[in-house]
This record gives sequence, C-alpha cells and structure tokens, in this order.
Amino acid sequence: MSKELTSRNEDYSQWYNDLVLKGGLADYSAVRGCMVIKPYGYTLWENIRDVLDKMFKDTGHVNAYFPLFIPKSFLSKEADHVEGFAKECAVVTHYRLKNDPEGGGVVVDPEAKLEEELIVRPTSETIIWNTYKNWIQSWRDLPILVNQWANVVRWEMRTRLFLRTAEFLWQEGHTAHATAQEAIEEAEKMLEVYATFAEDYLALPVVRGVKSPNERFAGAIDTYCIEALMQDGKALQAGTSHFLGQNFAKAFDVKFMNKEGREELVWATSWGVSTRLIGALIMAHSDDNGLVLPPRLAPFQVVIIPFISKNPEETAALKDKAEEIKKALKSKGLRVQVDDDETKRPGFKFAEYEMKGYPIRIVIGPRDLANGVVEVARRDTKEKQSISIEGLDVSIENLLKDIQDNMYNKALQYRDQHITLANTWEEFIDILDSKTGFVSAHWDGTPETEDKIKELSKATIRCIPLNNTLEEGKCILTGQLSKQRVLFARAY
Amino acid sequence: MSKELTSRNEDYSQWYNDLVLKGGLADYSAVRGCMVIKPYGYTLWENIRDVLDKMFKDTGHVNAYFPLFIPKSFLSKEADHVEGFAKECAVVTHYRLKNDPEGGGVVVDPEAKLEEELIVRPTSETIIWNTYKNWIQSWRDLPILVNQWANVVRWEMRTRLFLRTAEFLWQEGHTAHATAQEAIEEAEKMLEVYATFAEDYLALPVVRGVKSPNERFAGAIDTYCIEALMQDGKALQAGTSHFLGQNFAKAFDVKFMNKEGREELVWATSWGVSTRLIGALIMAHSDDNGLVLPPRLAPFQVVIIPFISKNPEETAALKDKAEEIKKALKSKGLRVQVDDDETKRPGFKFAEYEMKGYPIRIVIGPRDLANGVVEVARRDTKEKQSISIEGLDVSIENLLKDIQDNMYNKALQYRDQHITLANTWEEFIDILDSKTGFVSAHWDGTPETEDKIKELSKATIRCIPLNNTLEEGKCILTGQLSKQRVLFARAY
Repeated sequence: MSKELTSRNEDYSQWYNDLVLKGGLADYSAVRGCMVIKPYGYTLWENIRDVLDKMFKDTGHVNAYFPLFIPKSFLSKEADHVEGFAKECAVVTHYRLKNDPEGGGVVVDPEAKLEEELIVRPTSETIIWNTYKNWIQSWRDLPILVNQWANVVRWEMRTRLFLRTAEFLWQEGHTAHATAQEAIEEAEKMLEVYATFAEDYLALPVVRGVKSPNERFAGAIDTYCIEALMQDGKALQAGTSHFLGQNFAKAFDVKFMNKEGREELVWATSWGVSTRLIGALIMAHSDDNGLVLPPRLAPFQVVIIPFISKNPEETAALKDKAEEIKKALKSKGLRVQVDDDETKRPGFKFAEYEMKGYPIRIVIGPRDLANGVVEVARRDTKEKQSISIEGLDVSIENLLKDIQDNMYNKALQYRDQHITLANTWEEFIDILDSKTGFVSAHWDGTPETEDKIKELSKATIRCIPLNNTLEEGKCILTGQLSKQRVLFARAY
Repeated sequence: MSKELTSRNEDYSQWYNDLVLKGGLADYSAVRGCMVIKPYGYTLWENIRDVLDKMFKDTGHVNAYFPLFIPKSFLSKEADHVEGFAKECAVVTHYRLKNDPEGGGVVVDPEAKLEEELIVRPTSETIIWNTYKNWIQSWRDLPILVNQWANVVRWEMRTRLFLRTAEFLWQEGHTAHATAQEAIEEAEKMLEVYATFAEDYLALPVVRGVKSPNERFAGAIDTYCIEALMQDGKALQAGTSHFLGQNFAKAFDVKFMNKEGREELVWATSWGVSTRLIGALIMAHSDDNGLVLPPRLAPFQVVIIPFISKNPEETAALKDKAEEIKKALKSKGLRVQVDDDETKRPGFKFAEYEMKGYPIRIVIGPRDLANGVVEVARRDTKEKQSISIEGLDVSIENLLKDIQDNMYNKALQYRDQHITLANTWEEFIDILDSKTGFVSAHWDGTPETEDKIKELSKATIRCIPLNNTLEEGKCILTGQLSKQRVLFARAY
C-alpha cells in the first residue's frame, strides 16, 4: 500500500492527492468539484467540530440554522460582497423537473421558473442580517452571538480535495454588537480561539495577523487571519475573523435603540473555519509513508495488533491480552482499535496503519507476552520501544502527549526557520524560489504595489502580523517609504 | 406573552404556529418555505441529534458526507425514485452571476449554463449508490453501515414550520448488505432504534408498522414506519426505514463477488428522521400556555428564579442561593439556568418559561430561604410544591424522571383511547369526523381501494402494524374479503 504513495520530493501535489485517497479520508465524486468525505475523514471532522463547538459555547455563543438559499437580490445589497461572490455561485432557477413530452427523459419544467433566482449560500452574511433585522430593536437585544455549522458552495474553477472544493463544510459565526469596540474585541477573541485550536489540537503553529486591503473578505472593514506553513514552504490561510463594521447593518437596515434612546446601526463580525483544516493538517505533518495525525484529533489514537501464531491457543491468548489492553486504554478515554484479522500479514497491517496515521501501534507477540511487555511504535518518529504491560495505560497517555508536543515543535521549528527577511527585490525572489516559506519585507502600503508584486512573484501578502514591530524601510518593489514589514508567501 | 397564544380549541393549527414563533424555536425566512431555526430550537435539535448519533454508533454505524448536488441523470436511473422526487426539487442550472450590461443589476450569466443540471438533494440514495459502486468489490467490503447528517430540499407547495419545509435537516442512513435477510434485519433494527428514541426521549408512543404500497418510499420494496398521534387526533409519521431490495444496486450497477466467487447485486436499506420530530414533540405535549418539553431533550431542564426584594442585601442572598443551587444541579449533569434579571416582574418570567416549556421552575423567596425550602413548579401538570434545599439535587433528578414518565403515559393513554375499531363505512367516517385518531379497519388490499378511501375520507393507511393479528373480515369500502385490519387516520 505505502509503496504506491508518491514521495513529497517527487511531486508534492501528487503526494497530497494520493494521501487523501489512500488514507481513506475522501473520494472524488460524480459532481464536479464536490468530494465525498469518507467515514475516516468525517470522524476527523467530527473531532475538529466537537472541540471547536465547545470552545464557541464556552465563549458564550449558541448555534442556529439559516436557509441554504439566498435570494439573488440579497447578494447585491452589499456592493463589495456581491463583487466577491457573484462570480462563483450555484444558481437555482427552477423548482421542478418533468418528463420530456418528446421522449428525451427527465427535463427541467420551463413552467417552474422561479420569479427570483436563488443562490446556494457561499457564506451567509446577507440572509442572516436580513433575519437579524427582526431580532434586534433595542440595546437589550445585543449582543447576538450566533454560530452556524453548515455546507456552503463556491463554484471554484480549480478544486483540490479539502483545500478548495465547490461544496465544503464549515462553521460561520455571525455576531451583532452595540459598539465598534465590542465587535472588534469579538473578532479578535475568535481569532485567538482559532489560533489556540490550531496550535493545541492541529499541532500547527500559526501567525496571527490582519489582511491587507486586497486580501480582505468581501464586505469587511478588517480581516484577521491565522496563517500556517506547509512542508513545501507554501502558506495556508487556516481561519479568518472579520470586523464588518456597519456594512451589513446598512445594507439590511438593522438599527437598534441605544441606552440614550437614539437609533444606531448595529456593528458586526463574522468568522469561519472549514474542512480546509483537514487539508492543512495533512500537508503540515504527513510523510512519505502516509498520514501523521495529531493524537488529540486522530479518529483512533492506538491500534493494537496481536501476533497471529500457528498455535491457536497462543493466538487466543494474544487476542485476549489485546482486548484487555484495549479495555484499559478505553477506560482512560482513549480511542483504540484492535486488529486481529487472521487473513492479513503483519507487514500489510503495519503499512495500513502508517498510511492512516494512527499515532501509536502496539504489537503483542508471544515472547513479549511472556516478558510482560509490548512493542510500541510511534507514528511521528517511527521509534519503537518495549513497554511494560503493567501501567501501560499511563505510558500510552504520556506517549500520546509527547507525540502531540513533538509534532507541534517540529512544525514550529520548520516554520521559524522559514520566516526570512528580504531587503531587495532580488533577495525576495530568491527566497521565494529556493528557500520558500514566509518572506518578511517592506511594502509601500498601496494595493497597486501589492498587485504588481503578486503578478511578478506569485506571492501575496499573507498578513501584517498582530503586534508587528514598527520599523522604517523601503518597499522591496518601489523603494517608497514603509513603516513596517509584512509577511509575503506563495500560498494555497 | 402567554395571553397572545391562540388556544388549541380555538384553532389548533394557529396555536401550533404561534407556539413555534413565540416559543422561540423558529422563524419564517425570506426564502419561500425555508425556516430559520433559532438558537432555542436548534439546541433542541442538537440534543435530538446527539442522542440518535450515539444510538447509531452503538449499533455499528459511522458518519460520512456526500455531495449536496445530484446530477439530473442520476435521479432518472431508478424509475419509481424519479417519479417520487422530480416534481418537487430545486434545480441548479447556472454557476455564475454577472453585472447586467444593460444596467439591470446582477443577473444570471447565460454563458455559465451547466451542461447537465444539478438537483439539490431531496434524499441521497442515487449519489450514494453511485459512490458505493467504487467502494464495493467483494463480500469482504460488506456490510457498509453509513449515516449522513445533512440538509435536504423538497419543493413542497404547502409548508409548515418544522412539519413540512422546503429545506430541512435530517439524517439518512444508507447501508449495503450481502443478503436480503441481512438488509431486512437492518431496516427493522433501525426502526426499533427510532421507536425507542421516540418513546424514551420524545415521550411519544408510536405504532411500529409497515406502509401499504401507495405510501411506500419511492424506490423501496418495503417501508417500515413509526406513527404517532397528535393532540388533535391526527397522525404524524415520525420516522421511516426502507428495505430497498436491489433496486439501487441495479440502477447503479453495484455488484460484489460473494464467498462462492459469483457476482451478485448488493442489497440496500435507507432510513431517516428529520427536524419534523420537533414538530411532533410540540404537537403531542404542549398546552395553551406554551411548550411542554420532555426533560431528556429540553435545552434547559430547570430555571431558578430568585425573588427580587426591595432590600438589596436580601436580594443578594437570594441570588447567591440561586447560584449555589445551580451549581449543585449542574454537578449532577442537569441543564440549569438562573434568571435574576431585576428589570422583569416574576409574573412575566413565569409566563416566559412556561411558554418555552422549561420542565421545572424553582422560585426562591425570602421566607423560603429562612425555612430552608424552595418552591418547585413542574411544567407538565403545573403542580407546585415546597421542597427542602437539602438534597434538592436528588429531588429534582427524580422529579425530572417523573415528568418524563408522566408525559409519556399521558400521551400513551390518549393514543390508546384513540385507536378505534370500525366495521362499516359509516362508523369509519363518523370516527374520523368526531372522535378522530387511528381507525382500525379492514381493507381489501388493493391500491385502488386505498386511493378511493383517501379521496372520500381524507384518511390514509398509516401502517399495517408489525405483528398484526390476522383476522378475516370485509373491506369497509368494497366489502371484499380482507385478512387483517390496518390503521387509517387523517395525517400531517
């Protein structure tokens, strides 16, 4: 199985696709750009969702559900928003099929044309702010702290499993506030929730920052983001949190009576992460043998493989011990699987669980059993060690923690080694082409220069880091004065 | 607030709509037939989902996710299926909007017409069986026990909040098996899961049965169902589980190599419940003062209201006690809220929590506190009692259990009193018109008679109960011989 995986050096992009398919995470579907998330991949998503959902609830948010469809006219109400989303949306124009009277099978019934077309939501600001209009009258109705778990559709021309699909799963928070200050604090708070999740669960170090105007969400005043680095030195935006100002309140006429009895427009944020996180997870940690999943999110943290002996009694004893260990580990809340399939050879099994990225593999052989030990292999470093069965539950718990930390530290070291200062255009291009990673460079602050840099180098401004050091310098492209460096990279 | 609720006697249908809106469960949306599920209603759905999800996983199922869109040609591959769903579906025909060159705002870009139209899934058998074709080669790949939590769209002409909406949330299980027997057992097992959930959690007694051919799912060999009775004597189908035979395997050419090395078509089931369960819950238990929610699913099981005294110190002491009790109850895993808002009068609060169906209200007044007791009111019977603060956690736990049981027993008694035998057409019509409920009557077994009965009486065959007693008799409409009674009712 593992032999069929393209290596990262050979073709990073093919390695990624192979891994998603062979790791059993997702499949292509019959619908252009849409994927099937297979049970193993969906369990990973459930684990991500459950942790995030708890973090949202712990910060005072509640879930709700808004319609899949958005009337076409709603999209147009916020000028930047329609500009950003109209070019890539699925449009529902009819509500019925019928049998072709001329025998051509089932066809769209021309009589069932909608008066106004419906857009399959690419994001829900418009339908939600149209609803909030009815929910908000006075300052007493604020804040509204709502999140939605949903599917959205963006008709991307070039798609990649998890990273960019026409339909994807995500959560979108939409909050309403009485003051700009409160909304900005909310947007920053949720960015920090995302960053904490990325670092503590995905084992993915991220740069917290704010987007340049060109890279802002369509309709936002400010877009906060977390940016991660993949093993090929390309950046990946892992989550965004937007301060929307009063743009959507204006577009949908959402006002409230403040404590002084005056009408004001409501302030807004929105924030989201998606199944794209699974793509980030894969690209950041996996290797040429398969997935490497962080223990805190892995569908199964441990697989136990009893040796299949020619002696049936011995096999039975090994299987019993495997079940006994499974029980002990499960009682610690660990996610454990036993593979005692007698029709598959150990080598095949080892390769399979490596491909699937199980953090720990425990093998029990007859000699081990006699000595009261098992062989424990960790997926991240591939190290093996013999560990006493007595107290194994605690050893495994500690080892899982160690794997989680090690994955984070390895990614952090790689990331930190790949933030490089450039002071000239030549240096800038050279770093992008050879060393790769983030390039910290001066930029004159204009959208025109940003566009030109992108055109010439294929790199974009990933973010202006939060708490950035102010430092005077000259724009790498134009030589104009600049007050701070920003982070550039080629990106997914 | 409660005064604005239409009474059940006055207008049952209006009472229901009022209750959904004023109970804070859902709102109408700007999109025809689509609702907004508000946080309170969505929490109820999350509770339903979490319990069912666990029951599915405990019976060996895993979750996955399949595309929202279904190519038009897929629907047509199973003849009955397209007949059942083509008439009410949302059709995506284009993938882009553009600015109208003639200044008419944003319009559909005629150049962005899809080669093949996409249907927003009304149910996913076709896209899933098209995928299973790639997953199944040998008997070793079976069974596949997959479930999906998703949104679906059926373009219903007459919609009602929760009961029948154009878009709704549901789960759909889709399993694949090597034998007919195994598939039938799966369909029956999942029906029993639904029945157990309805009875133990929704407090809703159900009749387990099988549908007559006219009422079968489009594409099924047999449709199992659970049928519940609402307070107005109308029936409501609360869940279905289908034995699909080899129909979808045939349509999508899904074969497997059996143990004997011969190719066979795969056997299928599908089963689903939806946000409609929330409608059932409301209609079965609520009263003229508002929602009555079963404790096991209620978003909050207890509200604690400390009396607001004119003496600030006394108020502070009462609030402290409220928090102390909340903490004690939460440590038992109960869902508890304190309402110590000083701007609202107790009467207003009482009416609000009655409307929202909180199972238990605890009020703490100064005299109560001095006596070491609180006043506890249960929502279902409206009885109040004074209960000692010492050991209150256990008292409340027991009371919640009692409320859950009482709600079930009350509904069961009502249901059992509303299954009436009819032996003539006159009796049949009379029962439907005056007593309402289920009518147990003989039917000659033909679809034509079933249609005619529906046309004349507006009643349909809800189900042929499982383990039905065989009893010879004569069809109430045609007088033809019949071997068993079936259950008729007017239904939602």
